Amino acid sequence: MATNTGIYALDRLDPAALLAAFARTRSLTAALAAPLSDADASVQSMPDASPAKWHLAHTSWFFETFVLADVPGYRAYDPRYAYLFNSYYEAVGPRHPRDRRGMLTRPALADVLAWRGHVDAALAAALPGLNPAALALVELGINHEQQHQELLLTDILDLFAANPLEPAYLPAPPINLMPRASGWQHHAGGIVRVGHAGNGFAFDCEGPAHDVLLRPWQLASTLVSNAEWQAFIADGGYADPRLWLSDGWAWVQRSGIAAPLRWQASDDGWTSMTLAGRQPLAPHAPVTHINWYEADAFATWAGARLPTEAEWEVAAGCDDAAAGNQLDSAAAVRPGSTSQGLFGDCWQWTASAFLPHPGFRPAPGAVGEYNGKFMSGQMVLKGASCATPRGSSRASVRNFFAPQQRWQFTGLRLARDA
Amino acid sequence: MATNTGIYALDRLDPAALLAAFARTRSLTAALAAPLSDADASVQSMPDASPAKWHLAHTSWFFETFVLADVPGYRAYDPRYAYLFNSYYEAVGPRHPRDRRGMLTRPALADVLAWRGHVDAALAAALPGLNPAALALVELGINHEQQHQELLLTDILDLFAANPLEPAYLPAPPINLMPRASGWQHHAGGIVRVGHAGNGFAFDCEGPAHDVLLRPWQLASTLVSNAEWQAFIADGGYADPRLWLSDGWAWVQRSGIAAPLRWQASDDGWTSMTLAGRQPLAPHAPVTHINWYEADAFATWAGARLPTEAEWEVAAGCDDAAAGNQLDSAAAVRPGSTSQGLFGDCWQWTASAFLPHPGFRPAPGAVGEYNGKFMSGQMVLKGASCATPRGSSRASVRNFFAPQQRWQFTGLRLARDA
Amino acid sequence: MATNTGIYALDRLDPAALLAAFARTRSLTAALAAPLSDADASVQSMPDASPAKWHLAHTSWFFETFVLADVPGYRAYDPRYAYLFNSYYEAVGPRHPRDRRGMLTRPALADVLAWRGHVDAALAAALPGLNPAALALVELGINHEQQHQELLLTDILDLFAANPLEPAYLPAPPINLMPRASGWQHHAGGIVRVGHAGNGFAFDCEGPAHDVLLRPWQLASTLVSNAEWQAFIADGGYADPRLWLSDGWAWVQRSGIAAPLRWQASDDGWTSMTLAGRQPLAPHAPVTHINWYEADAFATWAGARLPTEAEWEVAAGCDDAAAGNQLDSAAAVRPGSTSQGLFGDCWQWTASAFLPHPGFRPAPGAVGEYNGKFMSGQMVLKGASCATPRGSSRASVRNFFAPQQRWQFTGLRLARDA
Amino acid sequence: MATNTGIYALDRLDPAALLAAFARTRSLTAALAAPLSDADASVQSMPDASPAKWHLAHTSWFFETFVLADVPGYRAYDPRYAYLFNSYYEAVGPRHPRDRRGMLTRPALADVLAWRGHVDAALAAALPGLNPAALALVELGINHEQQHQELLLTDILDLFAANPLEPAYLPAPPINLMPRASGWQHHAGGIVRVGHAGNGFAFDCEGPAHDVLLRPWQLASTLVSNAEWQAFIADGGYADPRLWLSDGWAWVQRSGIAAPLRWQASDDGWTSMTLAGRQPLAPHAPVTHINWYEADAFATWAGARLPTEAEWEVAAGCDDAAAGNQLDSAAAVRPGSTSQGLFGDCWQWTASAFLPHPGFRPAPGAVGEYNGKFMSGQMVLKGASCATPRGSSRASVRNFFAPQQRWQFTGLRLARDA
Repeated sequence: MATNTGIYALDRLDPAALLAAFARTRSLTAALAAPLSDADASVQSMPDASPAKWHLAHTSWFFETFVLADVPGYRAYDPRYAYLFNSYYEAVGPRHPRDRRGMLTRPALADVLAWRGHVDAALAAALPGLNPAALALVELGINHEQQHQELLLTDILDLFAANPLEPAYLPAPPINLMPRASGWQHHAGGIVRVGHAGNGFAFDCEGPAHDVLLRPWQLASTLVSNAEWQAFIADGGYADPRLWLSDGWAWVQRSGIAAPLRWQASDDGWTSMTLAGRQPLAPHAPVTHINWYEADAFATWAGARLPTEAEWEVAAGCDDAAAGNQLDSAAAVRPGSTSQGLFGDCWQWTASAFLPHPGFRPAPGAVGEYNGKFMSGQMVLKGASCATPRGSSRASVRNFFAPQQRWQFTGLRLARDA
Repeated sequence: MATNTGIYALDRLDPAALLAAFARTRSLTAALAAPLSDADASVQSMPDASPAKWHLAHTSWFFETFVLADVPGYRAYDPRYAYLFNSYYEAVGPRHPRDRRGMLTRPALADVLAWRGHVDAALAAALPGLNPAALALVELGINHEQQHQELLLTDILDLFAANPLEPAYLPAPPINLMPRASGWQHHAGGIVRVGHAGNGFAFDCEGPAHDVLLRPWQLASTLVSNAEWQAFIADGGYADPRLWLSDGWAWVQRSGIAAPLRWQASDDGWTSMTLAGRQPLAPHAPVTHINWYEADAFATWAGARLPTEAEWEVAAGCDDAAAGNQLDSAAAVRPGSTSQGLFGDCWQWTASAFLPHPGFRPAPGAVGEYNGKFMSGQMVLKGASCATPRGSSRASVRNFFAPQQRWQFTGLRLARDA
Repeated sequence: MATNTGIYALDRLDPAALLAAFARTRSLTAALAAPLSDADASVQSMPDASPAKWHLAHTSWFFETFVLADVPGYRAYDPRYAYLFNSYYEAVGPRHPRDRRGMLTRPALADVLAWRGHVDAALAAALPGLNPAALALVELGINHEQQHQELLLTDILDLFAANPLEPAYLPAPPINLMPRASGWQHHAGGIVRVGHAGNGFAFDCEGPAHDVLLRPWQLASTLVSNAEWQAFIADGGYADPRLWLSDGWAWVQRSGIAAPLRWQASDDGWTSMTLAGRQPLAPHAPVTHINWYEADAFATWAGARLPTEAEWEVAAGCDDAAAGNQLDSAAAVRPGSTSQGLFGDCWQWTASAFLPHPGFRPAPGAVGEYNGKFMSGQMVLKGASCATPRGSSRASVRNFFAPQQRWQFTGLRLARDA
Repeated sequence: MATNTGIYALDRLDPAALLAAFARTRSLTAALAAPLSDADASVQSMPDASPAKWHLAHTSWFFETFVLADVPGYRAYDPRYAYLFNSYYEAVGPRHPRDRRGMLTRPALADVLAWRGHVDAALAAALPGLNPAALALVELGINHEQQHQELLLTDILDLFAANPLEPAYLPAPPINLMPRASGWQHHAGGIVRVGHAGNGFAFDCEGPAHDVLLRPWQLASTLVSNAEWQAFIADGGYADPRLWLSDGWAWVQRSGIAAPLRWQASDDGWTSMTLAGRQPLAPHAPVTHINWYEADAFATWAGARLPTEAEWEVAAGCDDAAAGNQLDSAAAVRPGSTSQGLFGDCWQWTASAFLPHPGFRPAPGAVGEYNGKFMSGQMVLKGASCATPRGSSRASVRNFFAPQQRWQFTGLRLARDA
């Protein structure tokens, strides 16, 4: 966790601003759950996903465990929740198995929401008196909850897609996309600085800032679109082993894959399952719900490659201000939103494994388990998606998933050597 | 299905009595679901179990599919439900996979209950005009629903037991059991008649009635109790391979089994998880939640054996009237209810595989899939349990489960050669 | 084991005759292994099968463990073999895991054959001085080894079939079969006596002899042929769920089954892999390599059923003398041998589960594990196959396999109610 | 394959020198198989490993497929081998499944050796007339075969370790190791050049050479020893989740891991299974048979980290000459050989994922599948082991295995930031 690593100045944390951000974030999470029934919020569609209720509870657990537990006089709402809603913090104690989160029909959704109210009130009362280290943990908790807002949406989509009725979580948005002229942005290479620097918040794994030496490269100005992906399918992309990494080809064959997750071909063209239910595929919207193997195979087919994390970050770094067109309310979750900027449409697979930046050290204590212990078997994604809370991403953010996972809003942007 | 086999007289079916039984049965099912939240009713604890909502829906599906579909003017409540709530009838069409029943957070519990109301009203209106064959299907549907009442309870218990909070479905009953004097009832053997005969309802697999030749045998007058099972444990019963069948011993070792399902040892003695939450184990209550391997190993340890189906049935046959002390309302589900008769405490494993009686023929059409197609890999249980609807069992009833299953209310009664 | 149960007269055992049978049996086993290379004899094709070398070793282990270990002055050839070649006798001690038998490239085939020589010499020297109980164990060991002779052949066939080169174990025999007129033999039913009686050898599970009450039935005079099975295939037998038990249908779909094991369709008709390599299918030879699900589905398709064990046994009982046309040397293994009697073509699935005969008690001590502990999850087969040593079967013999297994020489004979 | 990428000069390939290297390599492979029986050479211990016979055959297949197939007049020894012994080249055609390689008891070891002779003779005859591209494929084939020499040894060790008899492949060498003074070699960082350059042979993935920017670092002068690993164990290293990556900790718990592969604790101290059978552990020899998770956890425990590939390569680059103390005959496989240089004791895990060097392009055609398609899910190892053919490694060599694999001769060398 950044604030414990000593590389950020803690005095930047203004309690009043933090309290406002806390209240905004907590409200948004509750708003995201509003369309869900008790059952919707309780079922786990697969071990990778969690029930919405679990996200609502775990984010409260974070504040209770890491902040409120040290506030004199605070009493845990229900001491049994410490076991139920710990995600993976070994240092905090034992926990309910991840793949059994869907067994917890109790506490009910209403109980979990009541617990949220309890935590919200206690934190609002305690916040003015917290020391800088505790304030930093509040800031981390806010950012942590923003991550779970996105996961709540992707996990609900996965659950609703597992139901033959294919229910809609929100109304279908108007989609009226124009094709964008694509092109290549040229970058000169050389020694560049990447990783998080400065006083703002960052997750521990985003730092330290460090120099890397890059060769000249080009980055596509647009994301790969659904129409381009249909061309890949039409050209036999899923049937040609020469395009695929060995693990990817094994996955394609074992799983009988022939299209992105939840695509269906019909007489009227392709459709896909979205948060607004099954919808016709917008040809000019960015392709999403592809995994790393698919992204890599597409890039090979296109005669290009995936950008490295550093390449992507350098390209994005000069306009962090652009990182602002994301989710700010439930209505903002727009399948096929199309800023086509580096942030806000979909997470973009890179050619880089999720490994520590040079000089990275996990924070001491339990929050040191936040990111570092997942540095194996995963690939880095950059940017932000239509489900990422607006303003919560940065050029240095390192999202990561395993190469076979594709239930997130994941797409790609091509790169090539100059 | 009995009425199609030609062995029962259809004219016994009195529409008025049938309508009353239908209403009683449908009401009881709804009452059993009353303590459940939407989430409780939607989650599937394991592939063997089904969500309570699914039981509520499937029993309506049965009447809609096999009776109402042929009633002129009837309109299905929602045509999509035919796919969602078919259990295993290949002849009726494709169906939602069994192990994915827990994905159906929609339709909500309230929707399923509304569907029940729709079906109830339609069937009540149609019943007076039904022909005898259709009336027989109504009778089958009532008995079918009674079976699902028991499954609803055992599946809820399995779900609640998977929750570390171990919630209670009903209040704990007073338990004040006395040990019963046990003994052996002697039977002379010879040619005896078993299987269902007469005019009353029976499932297809209960017939035809037929003669078997038995050697003299003895049947224990009491069920094996929790105290006796504790003696088996204390004597190393779970650690001695000589007591176990090969498959049973492999199961014990692979699963690390050392007690019946959901038993826990504490400083204050054994407890078990029940529909009233975790409770101290009543020593004189019948042991339940054991599988066939365990029942067989216990019998070997006790120097006895399991009774064959025919032995059990002959012993019970003279007092079918005894088959009356079972569930009649939600409150009637009494863990540890202790009539100690042949019916009403727990289902009793037999030494007999679930195979067809001589001359058995499945009914023509889809309802012919009711029992016959499960005649492999299962053992017969006789009697009735504390969760079996009162009056719904018979000496000829053939319950069946696979030898490793133990989430039902299953126990044993010993037998031996005379 | 029969001789320990007290139901057979031990004084029938003539040492000289026993020694001759021992020598004959041991020689035949070695002869069966003669065509095999060290590698052929060492590889395990699947967990159900064992390497030929393991069969050669385990049968020696049986004599060493149960007979020679008690002979004064006998020294085990290699004390480590006791662990390696125990099959499943818990009472004898720990053992090498069954599914890892193929890891034992050492001891080499030559070492195992040398061990056989050591055991043969020691037993020949000791036999004249053995007491009746030990002689009975020798008799059991001979019959045990005959069972492994058949398994050696079926397991080699399974191994060779797993090799794309499909090597031949023996030369292709001339096949010149005529269709046989089929018909139904009528049996009157009533009280009949089944199970082993008399002084001759029998495995423990064949007894006790006991009476059963049968209804009139008919048994087909011929086995179901390959041509008849082709008609079943052509009629869509593997695609019609109405013909199948639920477990069987799940197996067909999960495994993509459309024909008996190792059948292949070609432009020139069906072929199957045999001990003589891949061969055209002889239309009038009995179908083999089908499992119990397939046998049951065929019988349903044919409007018939499988015979019960008692029905089969009664039909066969009057001519035990017929049980003589089986293997007597390696050359005797004739794919498609066609006596069409009850013994000698293929094992015949019955409608009966492998459960204890009334009054069955396992023998005391380790040999009591011989059959009794497998009495769950298996179906009875009767008769003998082309790979069964000649003269080693009886009407009362109870072969057994699980319903999904089909690598043995297994076929069927139809029955129906009279 | 390097020679096709256009970055190496093909005219360096001298036919006479190549023929000598070919003969030497082929002879060594055969010599390595000499201690093996037909069965030893045929059994597959696990899907990751291959039978020795398969290695002997596949290396011949490589020359036959990529070189001899284009030589006028060459006739394949057996056309069926093309299917049996293709490893993973999709462009060449279908192939026998990897996890079924152990089913191939035929062709026998003698047949495979005869095939080797056929290929050797044909290649020796053809080599003087080959064009430069074909000569480059011969060179690749030689290096390919050297890789399989090491795999043959590690796979035989795995097989022999799966046998409770724990046979020895070679005599135990004298082990008389002294502890070496350990220390840290300092490196200044800056822009350095890594990846293969120059005219010599390299595998495709070793290039292109490219610049990277490194921070100052230190590399341990010695490998981590068995004694140091015992200290890690004694300190509870396998029981402390804080030391482990999440995937690593899950592996430890799931698999019950408490020591390197095949270590056993006894009253006389630790032993390990080696090519010379079970041997006492030499405390000052480098630890081997650890996977990447274990290497990473040890480094964390030691307050250090794994070196990146570039750090290791820069440290090694100045003395490629050191890469000469490896296997040259069967006798050279010395468990615990202890040069303690960068090459020759064990492969050393790095902190780097196996991903393409900047500018990497696979070769066109089937040999382009050699390395590139495995660039996911694997970590880079550098150096060479006691089983690596002498002189066959380089600083730029990129060995790779998945993080959970540990049947290779794998160890580690620590690094830290300066």
